[in-house]
Amino acid sequence: MIVVIQSKDQVGLVAGITGVLAKEQLNIVSLREHVDKIENRFFIRVHIEQETGSEALEQKLKAVLPPDAIIKVNPQPEKKVVVLVTKEYHCLADILIRNHFKTLGARVQCVIGNYDTLQNISQRFDIPFYQVSHEQKDKAEFEAQIAGLIDKYAPDYIVLAKFMRILSPGFVAKYSGSIINIHHSFLPAFVGASPYKQAFERGVKLIGATAHFVTNELDEGPIIAQQIIPVTHSHTSGDMMKAGKEIETAVLAKALHLVFEDRVLVYKNKTVVFE
Amino acid sequence: MIVVIQSKDQVGLVAGITGVLAKEQLNIVSLREHVDKIENRFFIRVHIEQETGSEALEQKLKAVLPPDAIIKVNPQPEKKVVVLVTKEYHCLADILIRNHFKTLGARVQCVIGNYDTLQNISQRFDIPFYQVSHEQKDKAEFEAQIAGLIDKYAPDYIVLAKFMRILSPGFVAKYSGSIINIHHSFLPAFVGASPYKQAFERGVKLIGATAHFVTNELDEGPIIAQQIIPVTHSHTSGDMMKAGKEIETAVLAKALHLVFEDRVLVYKNKTVVFE
Amino acid sequence: MIVVIQSKDQVGLVAGITGVLAKEQLNIVSLREHVDKIENRFFIRVHIEQETGSEALEQKLKAVLPPDAIIKVNPQPEKKVVVLVTKEYHCLADILIRNHFKTLGARVQCVIGNYDTLQNISQRFDIPFYQVSHEQKDKAEFEAQIAGLIDKYAPDYIVLAKFMRILSPGFVAKYSGSIINIHHSFLPAFVGASPYKQAFERGVKLIGATAHFVTNELDEGPIIAQQIIPVTHSHTSGDMMKAGKEIETAVLAKALHLVFEDRVLVYKNKTVVFE
Amino acid sequence: MIVVIQSKDQVGLVAGITGVLAKEQLNIVSLREHVDKIENRFFIRVHIEQETGSEALEQKLKAVLPPDAIIKVNPQPEKKVVVLVTKEYHCLADILIRNHFKTLGARVQCVIGNYDTLQNISQRFDIPFYQVSHEQKDKAEFEAQIAGLIDKYAPDYIVLAKFMRILSPGFVAKYSGSIINIHHSFLPAFVGASPYKQAFERGVKLIGATAHFVTNELDEGPIIAQQIIPVTHSHTSGDMMKAGKEIETAVLAKALHLVFEDRVLVYKNKTVVFE
Repeated sequence: MIVVIQSKDQVGLVAGITGVLAKEQLNIVSLREHVDKIENRFFIRVHIEQETGSEALEQKLKAVLPPDAIIKVNPQPEKKVVVLVTKEYHCLADILIRNHFKTLGARVQCVIGNYDTLQNISQRFDIPFYQVSHEQKDKAEFEAQIAGLIDKYAPDYIVLAKFMRILSPGFVAKYSGSIINIHHSFLPAFVGASPYKQAFERGVKLIGATAHFVTNELDEGPIIAQQIIPVTHSHTSGDMMKAGKEIETAVLAKALHLVFEDRVLVYKNKTVVFE
Repeated sequence: MIVVIQSKDQVGLVAGITGVLAKEQLNIVSLREHVDKIENRFFIRVHIEQETGSEALEQKLKAVLPPDAIIKVNPQPEKKVVVLVTKEYHCLADILIRNHFKTLGARVQCVIGNYDTLQNISQRFDIPFYQVSHEQKDKAEFEAQIAGLIDKYAPDYIVLAKFMRILSPGFVAKYSGSIINIHHSFLPAFVGASPYKQAFERGVKLIGATAHFVTNELDEGPIIAQQIIPVTHSHTSGDMMKAGKEIETAVLAKALHLVFEDRVLVYKNKTVVFE
Repeated sequence: MIVVIQSKDQVGLVAGITGVLAKEQLNIVSLREHVDKIENRFFIRVHIEQETGSEALEQKLKAVLPPDAIIKVNPQPEKKVVVLVTKEYHCLADILIRNHFKTLGARVQCVIGNYDTLQNISQRFDIPFYQVSHEQKDKAEFEAQIAGLIDKYAPDYIVLAKFMRILSPGFVAKYSGSIINIHHSFLPAFVGASPYKQAFERGVKLIGATAHFVTNELDEGPIIAQQIIPVTHSHTSGDMMKAGKEIETAVLAKALHLVFEDRVLVYKNKTVVFE
Repeated sequence: MIVVIQSKDQVGLVAGITGVLAKEQLNIVSLREHVDKIENRFFIRVHIEQETGSEALEQKLKAVLPPDAIIKVNPQPEKKVVVLVTKEYHCLADILIRNHFKTLGARVQCVIGNYDTLQNISQRFDIPFYQVSHEQKDKAEFEAQIAGLIDKYAPDYIVLAKFMRILSPGFVAKYSGSIINIHHSFLPAFVGASPYKQAFERGVKLIGATAHFVTNELDEGPIIAQQIIPVTHSHTSGDMMKAGKEIETAVLAKALHLVFEDRVLVYKNKTVVFE
């Protein structure tokens, strides 16, 4: 069983929490705690050997914690996930394979695409696919249709697996803390429509990817995981794009693994990742 | 202040320890705990914001822990280190630089070499160098002379920075848990006098290094850190040896950093590394 | 168009080869040459901008090369591949995805398994699956059945994607230079039935994988690619096995990419990889 | 012996070059060629087994190459280097160690600092140190003094090992193609005075470093090498700075190794690196 808590920091929090657990005869297998001194914020993740009733334990923990504490006792061990896509298959296919063989740590409920390109691959894994075109409608209507589908499944997380439409602040706020995005990233950073072309022209030796929670802007929000892949002068901008897809797939897979195991705590624009 | 404890596992240990800390009004900035379920062994490292008297706190912690507990309260923040070398300079030079600029996390007391090759570089950094030749004497006498020097400095750790003599079980036992070694390692493993020649002949694509505590055998003992460096067909066996030295330097530096920050706990033939 | 040549080394080989190409008005986009001085062996890979008739060019190249030269002009740009599996899905699924989206650089002809475990995933991608059980028959018969299926498809390469039966020297000889295998590997190396259990007990900090051509022994033969993934004390032996699968998948994908782009030349027990 | 050439691309260049070498009975041990199709630019590096007179060979090569060809036959095997520093020791110390043990592939002639902070470490290795303060003088005078010292040593390369003054376009132009700089870099990029503070506030999971030739702007110019180091939520901005120094040291070392072995060819704002 996992317990994850964050609150403002004060002396005695670990003692209070683990005192409750000890009184219940619960054995701690692994514990990680971190205090952000600048924000005076306390974060803890406790892996407990036994299972027990969540609600009663949560009440007992509440009694020893500051009123602002966010407590997750035994969070849903198998999260429900909705995946949003556009046309690129690489991240979705990896998710579908892991989902199919039950190593994703979550259950994919459905895939929603603004094109029908990835309908075929979804159906090969018996996952419902919905096309919601963004064409000939305004963003509010487009997002309302997506939200309607999402809400039918009540997922724990919404994964933007190369979903190329920019979501409105309203949509993001509605699913606050639940939307995970993957995007390319570079050293130095390139802004605009053709980042790989720019990276090629700049002659970079690394291509990266960043997985993050979505807050207000598409490529901003608390970073969960980042990684890079080396490239050389022999990479065309097309080769760089291919390399970018490999690293995007790997970074999103890692970020989802961390999130689905309740290892990622978010506060303001940063994460604490108890890897 | 750092507190590091290991003992047999039982319910309530974290509560007991952190209860003592809370009563002293000590704030925990970072805590990591791990239980080895197979060995039923408990490991914890607590980073406390304040400083306080070590002995009194140790007594209070003892009272809430099993009798076999090994407790280190506020372990020596700047360890004393003696470095043993033979002829290769790469690891020693890196240690001397970090020592000189006070980023090693320890203070090098002296360097002992079975040749005088590295006397010059040691002296450039004002570090005493002692040559103890292994020639024309038996191992017992050789080791007794080294031990005599070591004991004069009473170091916390002895670093074998490419020391190429095999130490006797008696010597190792005398400094049990204090000797750190770096050695090359390969996929697959090569035994014998010319590992790089064998690696070259096998056409490996990786060369590795392993830093570990020395127990009974030179290249065995609890592993602290390992890392690899890629090689290609264009590497001669000499190039592989050069690459090997780069990775040995990096892995030893990392292992020493972890040990000197009291992040490495040893039990039987394994380590817990709270990185 | 790609030209790949190996032969004994002598002065003037590059001049001879590129002289032929220049006379044909063929432009070299990328060229890599390597001489193994110990074996006195010459290796070259030339990427030519234009396409041209292979046979005529091969004859002209033959005229300027030593009689032992192995010349591949414009090798089959899309290789045919047969995949052998047992029960583990991770490598096969990755290959099927890449094959399905035409980024594998080869076409999977069929999958052969000694169990039917992976029939379902193969069929989801419309790839023929044949079960050839090893039970109740001797190895000769088992291998004859497999060879019968393989030969029907006349593949360029046979990929052992976690195929757990040891192939006989006769079978390996029949497909000499065409069989690619992936296996776990460790620092230090562990031999025997439960390598992950041994790795866990040894407390390693790295887990690796090696992709190689199969010659006479299952886990030997010229190495194509190797890579590692870090592990910690918190990995159980089951977690290590999971990490091992991730790195096996990645290393096999990389090795296949290199082989299918004709970047890997084999001589005796080593490879030259023009990455 | 090494031959490095770049010129505009046309059919027959490799044949022409290697034809000259074959006529001289020179054996090619390793050859790498690359054509940038967008720039129509040809790059080649040839490693020849024997040594021979450079000037005669250069003339013969000139005869088979386009008039714009830049030919380096047997470039100075041990480059002369001047190092510019400010206060940070990490890159300089690594260079001094490699220089001292003759593994740098170049000879450090002197160190020039705008403070005297690194005089002591330079002198420990018997390397002349000159302080040229930037205070109480204008940039033209400051740079003239530095140039005066540099020109006394006529170095092949000027290494900015954490030299924190911005050089004028005139100074850069005077040493065009000879100045190598190392700087931190991030995903996403942070501009301004406190990049580590910004990286900390953004919660990045990677810190990088870029080594590059200096052209007009300090942190721009053709990239030679880039690499990253992972960081976590537990890194303070001070820890991030330390991690940044480690990766800066490693990346500069790698870039210098590549440049000093004549593996880096520059054209416009990009490099071809024949690693």
